Order: sequence, then structure tokens, then C-alpha cells
Amino acid sequence: MMPLAAAAATGHDSIAHVALALAVILAAAKLGGDLAVRLKQPAVLGELVGGVVLANLDLAGVTWFRALTGDAMVGMLAQLGALILLFEVGLESTVRDMMKVGVTSTVVAALGVVATFVLGWGVGTLLLPGRSAYAHVFLGATITATSVGITARVLKDLGKAHLPEARVILGAAVIDDVLGLVILAVVAGVIASAATGAAPSVGATALVVAKAALFLFGALTIGLAVSPHLFEAAARLRGRGVLLTTALAICFVLSAIAAAIGLAAIVGAYAAGLVLEDAHWREFARRGEQRLQDLVAPIAEFLVPVFFVLMGMRVELRAFAHADVLGLALLLTAAAVAGKQACALGALGRGLDALSIGLGMIPRGEVVLIFASIGMTLTLRGERLVDAASYSAVVIMVIVTTLVTPPALAWSLARRERRAASRAGRPPGTTAKD
Amino acid sequence: MMPLAAAAATGHDSIAHVALALAVILAAAKLGGDLAVRLKQPAVLGELVGGVVLANLDLAGVTWFRALTGDAMVGMLAQLGALILLFEVGLESTVRDMMKVGVTSTVVAALGVVATFVLGWGVGTLLLPGRSAYAHVFLGATITATSVGITARVLKDLGKAHLPEARVILGAAVIDDVLGLVILAVVAGVIASAATGAAPSVGATALVVAKAALFLFGALTIGLAVSPHLFEAAARLRGRGVLLTTALAICFVLSAIAAAIGLAAIVGAYAAGLVLEDAHWREFARRGEQRLQDLVAPIAEFLVPVFFVLMGMRVELRAFAHADVLGLALLLTAAAVAGKQACALGALGRGLDALSIGLGMIPRGEVVLIFASIGMTLTLRGERLVDAASYSAVVIMVIVTTLVTPPALAWSLARRERRAASRAGRPPGTTAKD
Repeated sequence: MMPLAAAAATGHDSIAHVALALAVILAAAKLGGDLAVRLKQPAVLGELVGGVVLANLDLAGVTWFRALTGDAMVGMLAQLGALILLFEVGLESTVRDMMKVGVTSTVVAALGVVATFVLGWGVGTLLLPGRSAYAHVFLGATITATSVGITARVLKDLGKAHLPEARVILGAAVIDDVLGLVILAVVAGVIASAATGAAPSVGATALVVAKAALFLFGALTIGLAVSPHLFEAAARLRGRGVLLTTALAICFVLSAIAAAIGLAAIVGAYAAGLVLEDAHWREFARRGEQRLQDLVAPIAEFLVPVFFVLMGMRVELRAFAHADVLGLALLLTAAAVAGKQACALGALGRGLDALSIGLGMIPRGEVVLIFASIGMTLTLRGERLVDAASYSAVVIMVIVTTLVTPPALAWSLARRERRAASRAGRPPGTTAKD
Repeated sequence: MMPLAAAAATGHDSIAHVALALAVILAAAKLGGDLAVRLKQPAVLGELVGGVVLANLDLAGVTWFRALTGDAMVGMLAQLGALILLFEVGLESTVRDMMKVGVTSTVVAALGVVATFVLGWGVGTLLLPGRSAYAHVFLGATITATSVGITARVLKDLGKAHLPEARVILGAAVIDDVLGLVILAVVAGVIASAATGAAPSVGATALVVAKAALFLFGALTIGLAVSPHLFEAAARLRGRGVLLTTALAICFVLSAIAAAIGLAAIVGAYAAGLVLEDAHWREFARRGEQRLQDLVAPIAEFLVPVFFVLMGMRVELRAFAHADVLGLALLLTAAAVAGKQACALGALGRGLDALSIGLGMIPRGEVVLIFASIGMTLTLRGERLVDAASYSAVVIMVIVTTLVTPPALAWSLARRERRAASRAGRPPGTTAKD
């Protein structure tokens, strides 16, 4: 029984540490969020900056906050926050809504990934001539994946998550993750082959693609068919909190399945949100229970800021002091931003605001950081695929793209609405439910 | 930057595992809870039994669930659930309510702790003649602390958390933790002295007592003075979720302070709940925001069942097969139950239902398990203070007391209300707001 006892004791000791970390992170989130809202920016920007400020207090000798970025418990709560956010965002759309933008999203995602991959590869070749072609290719692959979390939160903060542009962006960001993972699998496969002298494996690549397609198709079709019956059965259970718990269990199961087949867990959470529809909890509504969205909101208010403050805390301002890192970071950021503007091409002629779509695809986040960290563990002929300088540059790119997107998207969506209003002859500020 | 990268990657891998564990635990909680409610028992009993069933599937060869009991992430979420529960329960009372029952609670707690300690010591002397007197004393100390979590949840499930008996029980359970920690500190101090041949330290004992008193006095008086101003300042912050986040931050800070000075973190969470009063968020209510209680409820619905299912999962039914363990467990349980009936003496002549108070103090939980696990790590002259058999017996005692309390308390509180109603000439079922 000793391991259990030890685990119990450990849990009790560390809960104090986690509680203090949460208090600090929540305070930073709300103070930063307040400042951002006063400056007419989305609150998420303030949460990121709050995190940057906290962690970089280590420049003034206060290292406690920086140490939190390596805390596994806080990291897990942040990831849980990301799942809840994607689930909440998914709840705002239905599968039918997504089908309407599915083709557009796929074209938008593919254009953005290919353009960014090529540009990132080019930046590597240009600025890192001493490193192998594999390192250049890997750098290109690393920067492709749009962070659906950041964009989702910005669209939510702005109250624009219902626009068709929002659905195209979020759909494309999800497909982006899938495409990014395929590229990573291919590149990693090629590198593994190169290390042993064998040819690249087409079979492994096809498997990744097949699994991703199967998951999304399966989750959406089976989910849509099963979930009404699941909620009908759940409605017969006595006790408090059955609606919320059933919905969370579905979200967590799909997240775990997505991760189990090698996709990001957030893809599963988003799929769960898409599948669940208001009609499924008619029975609970009849009893006078709250809407699922209202029940999820407080959990999101608690956990989602943990994710964004922690992302901000991962920035080391000290890295900006090195000129070579700064140069690589600048060009990498330019490649990341410019590459995604190719997305706009996919939206032309469909009555969508192409500029907003290109801007909405800019932010990079957790997936890019994970790619980079995988690259740091891969070696080929004694060379680390991603070295410390490249990693710092990638982190800076992640931060800049994240900081730039909220104001840019706020501006372009306001511009889109003014145009739509003037075309329709309506006063600005009123929106057609298009 | 490597540790950060590694941490990020680890976080992303393990979130799938945590998500799956949460889905399973939530499903077990709701299915068990449904069964309990149908049998007219509090839902928490069903959650515990759900946990017992899940983990003991290892008897049938399914070991995945048992392995979860050692998972640090799940353990942390359970502890967070315990904090949220105690915070939520504390919110239902004010400091003024507690002052009214403060003296009674202290007398009730002291009587229960002393009686249980002596009985537990006696059981050790009787059934473990081969072990040292220190081991007997430690066994007595281990079983003293009432689990405020179980009783709080039962009172909440029954809708009786507003009764004066409930406040006496919860107040006494909190003081119990403090007294239990003092006894543990004293016993551990005496044993450490015995190992070196020195005299027991009175100074260390006094320090523990002083810290506990100072914390409770400080948290309640400073908290009451400061928190209205804190909420007034917070009400000026822009953005979503400020009320909930401010309240959670206060809860987490007090929990961390309690743990830092050596008390259980849940004592801090309960103190935070007591300090916060409806009047503090007048400003938020004026804006049409939800009540704090309604915002905390969904978080509690998510995390609190994790705590109770996990507590059930810690039971190993296989331990019941050993006759000596079973005998020790039986007498230890009898001592734990009988000792707390001394609490009833403290409630006599105050217009309170003494039986309900004695029954409400029965459940043992996480604090007892932690004491026992500390005992397993302490050795004196080559003897482990708590051996594996004693530990198993303690765990069984924890479970039995936990399973017995909900129906016993439901019965005795119903009986109390019938009596109060018949005395007042009112029909049963209507309650005076006494």
C-alpha cells in the first residue's frame, strides 16, 4: 500500500503550491485583462502580457514565477483549460455550420500550410547556412500550425464567433493541426530513414493521414448519431450536475481518443463541442436546468486564463538580447505571417472577408512549441535538429504572432462589418445574421 | 530552455491520460450517485461506492483503474475538488454564524478528539501487544481527525447545511483538524526525542498550537476587514469572470497560507468561504451578474466528485481477507465511532440535537490517511510506527465510517426535524429557520 500512501501525501503537500500558483496566475490574468480591455483590446492579450511580465520578473531577481512554467501540475491545468476553451468554442457551432465552410476551410488551411512551410524552409536556408537541409525543412514544418486556441479566444472576446469567417478560420485551424502533424510525421520519417540510410516510408505517412480523417469523420458522424441518445439516457439519472458531467465526459473521451491516435487532444475537445447541440439537452431544459453553455462558462473562467498566462510566461525577454536570435526570430515571424496570407486566396469569391481570414490564421501556439521541443530531442549525424537559438527564435515568433493577431483581427472585423453595413445601407454597428 | 520544452511536451502527452481518467471518474460518480439517490441516500455515498467498484475491478484482472489512485495529476485534481467543496460549504455560513457556535464547536471537538485518542490507544495496546507503546499512541493519534469533507457533502446533499447542528459539526471538524495536527506534532516530537534520548519538546508543541490559533484568528478577522475592499477594487476591473476569479484567488491564497504553516489546506479554503459574504459582491449583483454560489457550483460539480470517487478507489477489498487486519479494523472502527459520541456531551443543554452531532463527527478521511502514511515513514529502533497491516485497518476504518455516516445522519436529522415540528405544533417537513 506504500505507493498509494506516498501519492496521497505528495498530493496534499503540492496542493498548497498549486493553490498559490493559481491565485497568482488568476490575479495576473484579471489585472492584465483589465488593462487590455481599457485599451480596447481583447482580454486574452492582457492575459498573455500578464504572463510575460510575471515570468520575466526573473530579470529583477524574482525567479519563483519563472519556475512555475516548468511545474507539471500547473501545466496540466493549463492544458485542461485549453480543452475547455476548445469545447466551449465548439459548442457555439454545429456540425451543419461546419459542413457549410468545410471545403473552404480545407483549401484555406492547405494554402496556408504549404506557403508557410516553404517560406520557413527558405528562412532556414538563408540564415542558417551552416546547418543541414534537414534542419531547414524541420524549421519550415515547425512553424506551420495555427493555434486555434488564441484565435478562438479573440473571436469569443470580440463577440464574433458566430460569423462565417470565424467558422472558416476555426475549421481551417483544426485542419491545420492535422496537416501540421502529417508534415511532422513525414519529416520525422524522412530524417529517421536518412539516419539509417533507408528510403522515406510512404506507408507511415498514409497511416497518419488516414487516422486523422477517420477520427474527424468518425467523431462527427458517430457523435451526432449517439449523443442525443446519451443525453436522453443521462436525463434519467438522479442527482446534481448530470448535464454538465455528461457533456464534460464526452469532451474528455473524444480528447483522449484524438491524443491516442496521435492528434492533438484539443482537436477532440473541439469535435465534442461541435457534436453537442442545444436540442440534445431539451429534457434538462424542461426541468428548468441551466443551458450547458452557462454551466461550462465558470469552469472556463477558472481554467482558460491559466493556459494563456502560462503561454505568456514561457517568453524569455532575455533571448531578445542576442542579435542572431533576434534576426532569425524576425524573419521567422515574417515568414509565419506572410505564409498565412496565402489563406486569403482560398476565401476569394465566396463572399467572405479574405483579409480577416488571413489575419485570423496568424497566431502560433502550443503545437508549434511542441514541434520545436520534439526537434530539440531529434539528432541526425550528431546535429540537434532544432538548436537552442532556433528554439528561442521560434518562441519569440509564437509570442509576436500571438500579440499581433488580436488588434489586427479586431480592426479587420470592424472594417468588415462597416463595409457590410454600408453595402446593405444599414447603420454601422448593426449586424446581419449572415 | 530544454526543461520548459520537456515540460510542455510532457503536459501535452499526459493530458490525454488525465482526460480519460476524468471521463471514467465522472461517469462512475454519476452512475453511483444515481443509485444512491434512488435508494434515498446522499449522492456522495454512491460516488464513494462507485470508486470502490472501479478500483476493485483489479480483482477481476482490470488494473487500469487501480493504477489511477497513484496518479499525481488525478490526485491533485481531487485535492482541488476538496478545496472547492470546503470553500462552497464555507460560503453557506458567515463568520458571525460561526461565532455563535464557536465555543460549542471547540468543546465538541476537544471531547471527541480526547475520547477517540484514548480508545484508539487502547485498541492498539490490546490487539498489537508485540509493538511498542509509541506505535499504540500513534494509532490513537491517527484516528482522531473527523473528515469535514464527507460531513460537509452529506449536509449539502441533504439540504441541511444551514442548521445550527451543521455549523457546530463543521466548526468542530475544522478545530478537529487543528487538534489532530497538534497531537501529531506532539507525538512525532516525543518519538523523535525518544530516538535521540532527549526529552519531549514543549516549545515545538506550543508553536504548532500558536500557529493554528493565529491563522484562524488572523484569517477571519483580517479577511473580514479586507475582503469588502478587495471586492470593491475588483469590481472596477473590466472583463469577464472577475467576481469568480477574485473569490477563487482568495480561497487559494488562504489554502496556501494554511498549508505553509503546517495546517491542512482545506482549513484555509473553509476559512475563505466563511469570510466571504453576499454583501461583498453587491456591486457585481447590481450589474446583473450571477451570485458567487451559482458560479462556484459548476466548478464543484466538475471537481468534487473526483475527490470522492478517488477516496473510494483507495479501498482494497482484498485486505478484508486477512483475519487479523479485519479484527484490528473492526475494533479501530468501533473506537473511531464510539470516541466521537463523546462529542454529543458537548452539545447537551444548548437546544441542539446531540445525537446528530455525535453521528456527524464520525467520518474519517484524507487527514487520517495522511497521518497513517506519515506513520509508515517514521521508524523507532528499527520498528515502523505504522506497519502495512495497521495501515490497511486504518483504511478500512476510513471507508466504514464514511459509508455509515450518510444514512445515519440522514435518519437522525429527519428525526430531529420531526421532533422540532411536533414540539412547535407544525406539520413535519416545514422547518423553522432557527
